[in-house]
Amino acid sequence: MALATAEQEGMRDAGGIEAAVAQLSARFAERCSISRSVREHHGHTTTLLGNQLPDAVVFAHSTQEVSEIVKICAANRTPIIPFGTGTSLEGHVNAPAGGVCIDLSQMDDVVHVFPEDLNCVVQPGITRTKLNEYLRDTGLFFPIDPGADASLGGMTATRASGTNAVRYGTMKDNVLALTAVMPDGSIVHTGSRAKKSSAGYDLTRLLVGSEGTLAIITEITLRLQGIPEAISGGVCPFPDVESACNAVIVTIQSGIPVARIELLDTLQVKACNAYSKLDLEEKPTLFLEFHGTKAGVGEQADMFGEIARDFGGGPFEWTDKAEDRSRLWQARHDAYWACLGLRPGAKSVTTDVCVPISRLAECVEATRADIAETGLVAPLVGHVGDGNFHCSILVDPNDEREIAAAHAFIERLNWRAIEMEGTCTGEHGVGQGKMKYLQREHGDALDVMRAIKRAIDPLNIMNPGKIIPM
Amino acid sequence: MALATAEQEGMRDAGGIEAAVAQLSARFAERCSISRSVREHHGHTTTLLGNQLPDAVVFAHSTQEVSEIVKICAANRTPIIPFGTGTSLEGHVNAPAGGVCIDLSQMDDVVHVFPEDLNCVVQPGITRTKLNEYLRDTGLFFPIDPGADASLGGMTATRASGTNAVRYGTMKDNVLALTAVMPDGSIVHTGSRAKKSSAGYDLTRLLVGSEGTLAIITEITLRLQGIPEAISGGVCPFPDVESACNAVIVTIQSGIPVARIELLDTLQVKACNAYSKLDLEEKPTLFLEFHGTKAGVGEQADMFGEIARDFGGGPFEWTDKAEDRSRLWQARHDAYWACLGLRPGAKSVTTDVCVPISRLAECVEATRADIAETGLVAPLVGHVGDGNFHCSILVDPNDEREIAAAHAFIERLNWRAIEMEGTCTGEHGVGQGKMKYLQREHGDALDVMRAIKRAIDPLNIMNPGKIIPM
Repeated sequence: MALATAEQEGMRDAGGIEAAVAQLSARFAERCSISRSVREHHGHTTTLLGNQLPDAVVFAHSTQEVSEIVKICAANRTPIIPFGTGTSLEGHVNAPAGGVCIDLSQMDDVVHVFPEDLNCVVQPGITRTKLNEYLRDTGLFFPIDPGADASLGGMTATRASGTNAVRYGTMKDNVLALTAVMPDGSIVHTGSRAKKSSAGYDLTRLLVGSEGTLAIITEITLRLQGIPEAISGGVCPFPDVESACNAVIVTIQSGIPVARIELLDTLQVKACNAYSKLDLEEKPTLFLEFHGTKAGVGEQADMFGEIARDFGGGPFEWTDKAEDRSRLWQARHDAYWACLGLRPGAKSVTTDVCVPISRLAECVEATRADIAETGLVAPLVGHVGDGNFHCSILVDPNDEREIAAAHAFIERLNWRAIEMEGTCTGEHGVGQGKMKYLQREHGDALDVMRAIKRAIDPLNIMNPGKIIPM
Repeated sequence: MALATAEQEGMRDAGGIEAAVAQLSARFAERCSISRSVREHHGHTTTLLGNQLPDAVVFAHSTQEVSEIVKICAANRTPIIPFGTGTSLEGHVNAPAGGVCIDLSQMDDVVHVFPEDLNCVVQPGITRTKLNEYLRDTGLFFPIDPGADASLGGMTATRASGTNAVRYGTMKDNVLALTAVMPDGSIVHTGSRAKKSSAGYDLTRLLVGSEGTLAIITEITLRLQGIPEAISGGVCPFPDVESACNAVIVTIQSGIPVARIELLDTLQVKACNAYSKLDLEEKPTLFLEFHGTKAGVGEQADMFGEIARDFGGGPFEWTDKAEDRSRLWQARHDAYWACLGLRPGAKSVTTDVCVPISRLAECVEATRADIAETGLVAPLVGHVGDGNFHCSILVDPNDEREIAAAHAFIERLNWRAIEMEGTCTGEHGVGQGKMKYLQREHGDALDVMRAIKRAIDPLNIMNPGKIIPM
């Protein structure tokens, strides 16, 4: 495939883009916007990465419309950037070679719920909160909960997870089938509503996590879960991070089907106390939740309490009262905002890595030592049941030395995770921010990814400049 | 990609194959066999498909050796067919264009067990029974259990599952990472030992289920499970198949984390009674198993018993005694042999489909009516918690009309499953036998699969003539 792309040439194909935008404006009228404020909103990153605006934003209303837009872009070799809620943390919605952003937020219907099959079909623009509100009366829920109220399309495209993944898996485990528009505008259906299949290549899993670089996801069939009969939860302080991590390892090994097990380091606990008006002991702390029958969730909580005691943790105070649990988990979900309160005026730069759980304590300790040595303010929270943790680095956006120090720290953190048989991102995705780590993480497998990208998107118009350097 | 392949030309490249076999014989000496009996063993199918022998069989001992073999074959455009235990049910190990069979059965080591991480690394030739024997002292087990004592490599390549999948998932859910030899002989590593990752395309899931058409799997990192503290199980007769299926639906919907829930129709129960010396009531019957704490498995069994009663089923007799359960599950695993006893001298042709669970009763009933109308002897068993069921059609291998009737029945069964939003194979894979159903099941997505196959294996040497017509 010797075709030089706009990106490889280091330049945007201004003529092609102009022609595409003209055709899209004629077809979609006010739903194709070239207003600077709309484009700024769609090319905005939540990170230290610079903002790179698309040339136009088209608000799509159907799979058929997405297909039309893609055909126009393909005919004019114009880059396409899909957009859900814009909450990506690694620059996924940036437009480094310009092009057309397809905003899918107005495709936010629940197409069908199949309660007997525990699955449903949704459009990509619906957010996880809206989906769960819709499902409430069915007795079912969708468990994946990234920090932001992201769209299901974005969550699928980045292989998102969250606090429940230790029990219910990630998007990879909870997407059964997809409708997607390919780079030539053709519409394909991957998978089926059957719970399992051995019928050919797993295109569903190939598109989950492909970040808009292979196709635009326009419909998603999701597995649902029954709302548990009973839920218990609580908090448990530990003398140090290592003993908290060791308690997590034993909990998982013991087969306790914990639904959530989250670590907050001392600094994060301080931040949450201040922001969410809690009075937690300022020590490394685990937040836990158990799902099951009434007897079962009590049994699970008691088993965990014993394990915690063995590692010097506790007291483990738990409750099955909904209001007490909600306050706790609201505080956990507000961790990002609580962090910002630690250093008013600072910008938070969030990064995530994931390691085998046996290396978790070691990785977290080395990272905390690194933070201390660098002098950064960087609280740490983690979905530790999966070996996944996040650092939110609070930087002065006007201090270049501090920004450089944050970048260098993030780089060390990622190499450390990869060296410990882990990955440079457990759930945020690659986008632009993590591209430089993939060669070391994947070696020659990156060439296989590149071959797939070239085969499916020979013009490199699908979210170019993300995941794989072409 | 204008390269004509041996298969497209409808002929084998005799010169290339001869050259490859000569080089392999020189390199691997007695580990490269051209003996007819060895080749017959490796090109044997367990189905009605004719046997198609490879030109040679090479017994590989390491990833490095597999790479060498692939390089020799690639240089001579010689087809490569990977082989584990030869228990495939859809002609996966046939060699329609001749070529070299790589036998991986001697690569059967457990490379490493990581008990803290609940995972292990194995070579592809180890069988599931051997792996679980190896793991016994660790308190861990690997749950996936297809009918045959298949190799983990073959199970990975066909995305196998079995009776435990309703609780523990399929191979897709239980493979974390792979080492694979690509069609040019390069060695790649996909995934990592971290429990989750968002770092690029999910090549692990692309290779799981690719049936040797994209790469040869030479090392597999598997998730393991803790052996449950307690297990209970039993059998429950129902007045008809429909009420049994409806009890399954409600059980799954109620969130009872059933570990196994298997349907045997009346004919299969008769066969098992005769073969395994049981005295089960000759009615449609569910075999069940529950994993958990001692209190938990009793609670689950009682909850199921109530559901069964609501549908006219029962009595549900369950036990937590290991010896009683073992006898029952041995009978379930011997279902294939029990079938053969129904019609001595007959050959069993086994097929599987999978539908959304809400369509299960309807699909099973229509299939049983079809069997009755056709006059075939075809007992039915199913992993019904997943909507997956199998028919074993007992045919006289010398009766061409009967064989034609069996083929026609299988075809109707597959169309029926696809029309009910299901799939033509839940766990057996495509091989040669199910290729003709993929166009209707996948539509244009089959073109995407073909593009991937061409990009990764441009010479079409990797198990040609399987999955996708090129």
